[in-house]
Amino acid sequence: MAIVVQKYGGSSVADADRIRRVARRVVECYQQGNQVVVVVSARGDTTDELISLAKEITDNPPEREMDMLLSTGEQISIALLAMAIQAMGYPVISLTGPQVGILTDNVHTKARIQDVRSERLMDELNQGKIVIVAGFQGMTPDNDITTLGRGGSDTTAVAVAAAIKADVCEIFTDVDGVYTADPRVVPRARKLAAISYDEMLELASLGALVLQPRSVEFAKQYGVTIHVRSSFNYNEGTIVREVTDMEKTMVVSGVAHDLSVAKISLFDVPDRPGIARTVFSALAKESINVDMIIQSGMRDEMNDISFTVGKDDLNKVVAVMSRVKEETGASGVSYEDNVAKVSIVGAGMITNPGVAAAMFEALADAGINIQMISTSEIKVSCIIDASDTYKAVKALHEKFGLDNSIEEPDCCVAS
Amino acid sequence: MAIVVQKYGGSSVADADRIRRVARRVVECYQQGNQVVVVVSARGDTTDELISLAKEITDNPPEREMDMLLSTGEQISIALLAMAIQAMGYPVISLTGPQVGILTDNVHTKARIQDVRSERLMDELNQGKIVIVAGFQGMTPDNDITTLGRGGSDTTAVAVAAAIKADVCEIFTDVDGVYTADPRVVPRARKLAAISYDEMLELASLGALVLQPRSVEFAKQYGVTIHVRSSFNYNEGTIVREVTDMEKTMVVSGVAHDLSVAKISLFDVPDRPGIARTVFSALAKESINVDMIIQSGMRDEMNDISFTVGKDDLNKVVAVMSRVKEETGASGVSYEDNVAKVSIVGAGMITNPGVAAAMFEALADAGINIQMISTSEIKVSCIIDASDTYKAVKALHEKFGLDNSIEEPDCCVAS
Repeated sequence: MAIVVQKYGGSSVADADRIRRVARRVVECYQQGNQVVVVVSARGDTTDELISLAKEITDNPPEREMDMLLSTGEQISIALLAMAIQAMGYPVISLTGPQVGILTDNVHTKARIQDVRSERLMDELNQGKIVIVAGFQGMTPDNDITTLGRGGSDTTAVAVAAAIKADVCEIFTDVDGVYTADPRVVPRARKLAAISYDEMLELASLGALVLQPRSVEFAKQYGVTIHVRSSFNYNEGTIVREVTDMEKTMVVSGVAHDLSVAKISLFDVPDRPGIARTVFSALAKESINVDMIIQSGMRDEMNDISFTVGKDDLNKVVAVMSRVKEETGASGVSYEDNVAKVSIVGAGMITNPGVAAAMFEALADAGINIQMISTSEIKVSCIIDASDTYKAVKALHEKFGLDNSIEEPDCCVAS
Repeated sequence: MAIVVQKYGGSSVADADRIRRVARRVVECYQQGNQVVVVVSARGDTTDELISLAKEITDNPPEREMDMLLSTGEQISIALLAMAIQAMGYPVISLTGPQVGILTDNVHTKARIQDVRSERLMDELNQGKIVIVAGFQGMTPDNDITTLGRGGSDTTAVAVAAAIKADVCEIFTDVDGVYTADPRVVPRARKLAAISYDEMLELASLGALVLQPRSVEFAKQYGVTIHVRSSFNYNEGTIVREVTDMEKTMVVSGVAHDLSVAKISLFDVPDRPGIARTVFSALAKESINVDMIIQSGMRDEMNDISFTVGKDDLNKVVAVMSRVKEETGASGVSYEDNVAKVSIVGAGMITNPGVAAAMFEALADAGINIQMISTSEIKVSCIIDASDTYKAVKALHEKFGLDNSIEEPDCCVAS
């Protein structure tokens, strides 16, 4: 008997028919003798509808109250799914994030899970019940409801899987695995049979919206095996785990793109020690995640500082930066949200020089201007004009030999 | 500085404009130097929409999951109202029923409040915040979410008012007080300045849907003064409290009608000891509230038993009665939901004989057939055909001199 955690996204539970389909799939897993925990997101457009209710009231809703509001979306889903399973004649119980004992910090709207007190969950499982858990939500030590931010249900699923030592955490999506690029952009994109946590982490961070990055971090930290698969078929999907023999010969395993970034530039900042700290600690205080940071070379003892954030945070960033501009004596700030980040990811990069150069060459050949560059051991990212995104992804997919799985990349040979 | 509990119903928070209007009214009370707790219901049709979502999944949703589902309605309301008040610049926090520490038994969908652990609520009030509380919901000792049944938000308001020793519990409705009859049925109905708990209890139980009966019981038990008033104007409404000097000379203070009843008859039940127990303990086990009960005189050692329940419970009653029919050997069961209950209520009845007779006379004069009769010290109720309801209410309102506040009733003189 295995312990299986399944996670279904909002589109999988958007209406009664889909809820019944999920219920059947859950029951199949239970009938095979498994203990089954199911994590669900809010149905379809529920979250957007709730957000627009808030927007009708105020442009700046307090984040604690946003969490109070948004957490109802998942609560509706778990109740309906539990009803559907019960109607099929199987023992089932739904639990909210607080009821599951998902304890978080108190950073509302993007709280981090700190502990999962899974006694009640295990107790219900051991009574033979299928347990339906509300994704995306938790509780502070003071009993306040928090949400985990975009894609937080993935994190819930992996955190629960870690806490109850599940054998596998199945993430059901509308695609049937992790691809070398978005198949809607690159028709020749291939499904990967397996991928390492680190590669998945980079892909996830870079806008391949298959898995929430924090869920992958959690999975890596606790050794949770993730199976990304389709809720529409029974195909094997992509396994995310520590060692990926099959893929380790690939220098670049995927090309990701992300249109949800915004670029901020601060001009003519005096070249004094502590300036960067002033800028980025002000942003950190507001829990704004800064992604890429570039400080240009000094000119007349002045620097330009550019960085990127998620578009969702742009309002908050604008408020912070007007204060920062005063404090630092910068000459101006600019905000651009018509940019995109394209990235190549691959564990093989570490041992293969020239990968970044090959990327810049491909983009140059396609006539695409690079605005910012950021690298890690296993990825290279470039900020480009949003309108160039798809052209860039196609060029990179071809450049690194991903269009055809048999052919070696033309830029460098795998170790 | 007084402590004021205000309760707003679902229609008061149905859209953004109405929520802002409630917010302004709450803030006015706060600006007058009061500590303010606000209890709100689910917005407009939210509860009905949630019920129909459940119905799409199954005809018999488990009640625990219904509570999980329905409690989201109030949670949405409190978040939105808190946002509106915060947007006006006032300190505010929303709390769910569980967060307020409203502990109930575990009879899902009609739980009873057993305790209010108001430490957190008082703590927030003492920090100078306006506290918004989700009505209608609570938590079992096992941490499961419960709902209090129809009109449960009134009960929440009164229970909270009792727990924090509020000076007054203002119940805002779409009418501006308690009337001698439904003004939509009897245009000459008058607003009562004050009414006793017992009279209000009878009126509430009898279908004058101004206040939930259990909320009045609670208020009586803990001496909470209720002020029933309109959310659309600043008129004085009706005070519900222990002694009502102004009204005690009225023999009949109001006429109520209730169209939400169903009548069940069990025919030819053998006349054995314990039969009534068999019938009504089976219903009690399912937490079905039985209202009126009549057992007809014996005929050939057989009895007919009739009783009434809320229409909402009819499905459950049908299931119970088919078992009961077998067990008792009754010859048949009939169900009628095209009936209504009309009632007269008045504390003065106790000392005035002939009130019931005057009621039957008025109904007979109007050509209305009486199917069942039930009496208490301060009320008389009759089950009649639903189509006769309005005719009956008008006849009774006139008979007992309620059409004109100066004239004495023509049937009997008050003590």
